[in-house]
Amino acid sequence: MLPTSINAIEAYSGANGILKKVKKGSLLIDSSTIDPMVSKELAKEVEKMGAVFMDAPVSGGVGAARSGNLTFMVGGVEEEFAAAQELLGCMGSNVVYCGAVGTGQAAKICNNLLLAISMIGTAEAMNLGIRLGLDPKLLAKILNMSSGRCWSSDTYNPVPGVMDGVPSANNYQGGFGTTLMAKDLGLAQDSATSTKSPILLGSQAHQIYRMMCAKGYSKKDFSSVFQFLREEETF
Amino acid sequence: MLPTSINAIEAYSGANGILKKVKKGSLLIDSSTIDPMVSKELAKEVEKMGAVFMDAPVSGGVGAARSGNLTFMVGGVEEEFAAAQELLGCMGSNVVYCGAVGTGQAAKICNNLLLAISMIGTAEAMNLGIRLGLDPKLLAKILNMSSGRCWSSDTYNPVPGVMDGVPSANNYQGGFGTTLMAKDLGLAQDSATSTKSPILLGSQAHQIYRMMCAKGYSKKDFSSVFQFLREEETF
Amino acid sequence: MLPTSINAIEAYSGANGILKKVKKGSLLIDSSTIDPMVSKELAKEVEKMGAVFMDAPVSGGVGAARSGNLTFMVGGVEEEFAAAQELLGCMGSNVVYCGAVGTGQAAKICNNLLLAISMIGTAEAMNLGIRLGLDPKLLAKILNMSSGRCWSSDTYNPVPGVMDGVPSANNYQGGFGTTLMAKDLGLAQDSATSTKSPILLGSQAHQIYRMMCAKGYSKKDFSSVFQFLREEETF
Amino acid sequence: MLPTSINAIEAYSGANGILKKVKKGSLLIDSSTIDPMVSKELAKEVEKMGAVFMDAPVSGGVGAARSGNLTFMVGGVEEEFAAAQELLGCMGSNVVYCGAVGTGQAAKICNNLLLAISMIGTAEAMNLGIRLGLDPKLLAKILNMSSGRCWSSDTYNPVPGVMDGVPSANNYQGGFGTTLMAKDLGLAQDSATSTKSPILLGSQAHQIYRMMCAKGYSKKDFSSVFQFLREEETF
Repeated sequence: MLPTSINAIEAYSGANGILKKVKKGSLLIDSSTIDPMVSKELAKEVEKMGAVFMDAPVSGGVGAARSGNLTFMVGGVEEEFAAAQELLGCMGSNVVYCGAVGTGQAAKICNNLLLAISMIGTAEAMNLGIRLGLDPKLLAKILNMSSGRCWSSDTYNPVPGVMDGVPSANNYQGGFGTTLMAKDLGLAQDSATSTKSPILLGSQAHQIYRMMCAKGYSKKDFSSVFQFLREEETF
Repeated sequence: MLPTSINAIEAYSGANGILKKVKKGSLLIDSSTIDPMVSKELAKEVEKMGAVFMDAPVSGGVGAARSGNLTFMVGGVEEEFAAAQELLGCMGSNVVYCGAVGTGQAAKICNNLLLAISMIGTAEAMNLGIRLGLDPKLLAKILNMSSGRCWSSDTYNPVPGVMDGVPSANNYQGGFGTTLMAKDLGLAQDSATSTKSPILLGSQAHQIYRMMCAKGYSKKDFSSVFQFLREEETF
Repeated sequence: MLPTSINAIEAYSGANGILKKVKKGSLLIDSSTIDPMVSKELAKEVEKMGAVFMDAPVSGGVGAARSGNLTFMVGGVEEEFAAAQELLGCMGSNVVYCGAVGTGQAAKICNNLLLAISMIGTAEAMNLGIRLGLDPKLLAKILNMSSGRCWSSDTYNPVPGVMDGVPSANNYQGGFGTTLMAKDLGLAQDSATSTKSPILLGSQAHQIYRMMCAKGYSKKDFSSVFQFLREEETF
Repeated sequence: MLPTSINAIEAYSGANGILKKVKKGSLLIDSSTIDPMVSKELAKEVEKMGAVFMDAPVSGGVGAARSGNLTFMVGGVEEEFAAAQELLGCMGSNVVYCGAVGTGQAAKICNNLLLAISMIGTAEAMNLGIRLGLDPKLLAKILNMSSGRCWSSDTYNPVPGVMDGVPSANNYQGGFGTTLMAKDLGLAQDSATSTKSPILLGSQAHQIYRMMCAKGYSKKDFSSVFQFLREEETF
């Protein structure tokens, strides 16, 4: 599980890379979150060596990893999925077959694209509501019983004081860092550009997290966008 | 329940308006979705006549209205809420007290702001995923078990073929019209400007629905933004 | 010349407002930058008193005011323009007739909308170019001889060190404050919403200046958006 | 002068590519508009062969090419610039040295980024002004004598009837196609992501041109964004 596409390419195709010595029939599973195009390239190279490559990015974070409840999104040849599932099942409670190589990455990227958008949307709506005189807890309750409901509002609310046990309750420490979200949105942007898919809000979300990284938020949880949007600086 | 702020002002302060003949002690409930500032203004005028004004915008649509399952978001003097609740309870299964006059509008506006953002986000993520080779039903399933989950993805999915009984399954007929969403986003924009609250994605969502109205989508359900974003025109 | 629509309404229609004692045949010229709808309303009231109202917002700033080189954009009855021109000509070198009442405001708002967009665009392009290894002065020179040329790049460049005698050469002191630009973009937003005109970049520019006001830039010149966009905080 | 990065890589590094047979001491000039990173890569490969590589993207279009008035933005080793200038001078009236390899691309990309933003901004401002009752020609005149002035407003105005001899005077035929602008904005997006430079308006401009390509505007001049933004479809 490596941080970037370049790291993954190096690990496979580098001077001392896996491709140099991989045995025929091996099953290689990459759980990095990288460009789906790169996963496809690596799969081709691996196939030439008579081995099998699958992309299996993960979601769930440190907590889920510890408790073995990660979600794996797997892309690769369907016949090989059973084998991958057996291994990944030890670490994850959800192991989902997504389709051909690269679709695991695609699923992860699309989820985080929507996550980033709905988190910023939740932060904007909560901030506006508070300024209009609503109590934050009450507003969250109303959103969560209405059509505005989303994971960011009902499970990971970005407003301090609304929920316990989430980063917003702990000065945005822990959780999923703003830098990592900016990186995943960069992948979504690349995929959107190469497939010519318009992502108007996604591009904006990308730029917002990009700016936050420049304003001292890089290590805070990505829900700190609420703090970033507030009228007053609070740190 | 009137379409715009101007209509409401006319109904109350117009030549033959309610204010001309309202009896002392009357309880006036306005279920229009309008500018919270206007609700506050009307409340002042009504108070001068010795009556009580509450704003109680509604969500749920025609279906919920027929079955008496609307949600009312009520703003006004707390002592009068019980009386309003008794009446509104006949039409709605949820009658929520939001606070001072105008907060009912605020809650409705904030919910629809977040709804618009997450709907467009869902459309962008689904469209990108499909172009990256994912099956729409599978992608929806993955999003709904992950952090991208939102009402727009799990209850009102905008992609034809993913769910039954939603506008996307019926060429975007019925449901909540794009014009109405554009109107509510205009109210969110006004409230954001007057309270100086930044709504980056909300402004963009407003402009996107504004454009859709100009491109023949005004009468379609607001989930037709998926169709609008697709590479190929399909109507 | 008053700061907001509310101030102008108060000055005309307030308890001791101009409308209380204005003489028949008077020519009333309002040089505030306010909502065109308000100018139209005021014109109607003034007309009832047998007087004439014109909106004549100004551009050029303190320097131009001192030297009598302001630009006035005038809206009102054409027959009265000559009279207004005679007076305004003493303070401004450009007195432009824009059309019916409110069009002076419209022209001012549209100019500042485009100004805000091209200033942010210049800041984005200069910042990207610098990060890609270009010398700021050289990049400005290239833009200014190419199709990227605009007032913000060739007359008011936002990058410190590129030009002398502009706010960016003086830590963004003086010039046109970010708060004022945010206010004018709020007017553009209101006008766009009421006329249902899509302003995708304009809305975004509005939100960007809105955020800057919250991040300590409110008193700096609006060209400080370059500083705001930079990767590192520099103040 | 090739359309995409892939084409350029193929032309140099492909099976029968230039690198297979290039002579020591040759000067290779690439006038494609491609990813600066690719230009840098190619330069390294060419250097290994004892030859010199320079990127020299061009601006000015077909007309300028015919009349020999193109602008070349050149990146490469400074000592070799004189030689390149001698050759390029035959086709271009402006041959600008931008710095190290890749900076020619950087300059071109930054110019087109700002161009796209100011063109959309001009379209938004003109459209809003017209809806507010201003005469298009008069509004253009006012913008061009004020701080909103830009190449898109004074030289290439996107509103039919404002100027002669521009694409907007010819139903947006000829000129610089929307597809090409979308492509260049994709390069700007990639460069911004790799250098972590926030381009809020640039990303939005990219997505707008992306959508236009999907709505039947791909072959029209990029100034047709005015037509795209109008309330009524006009084609």
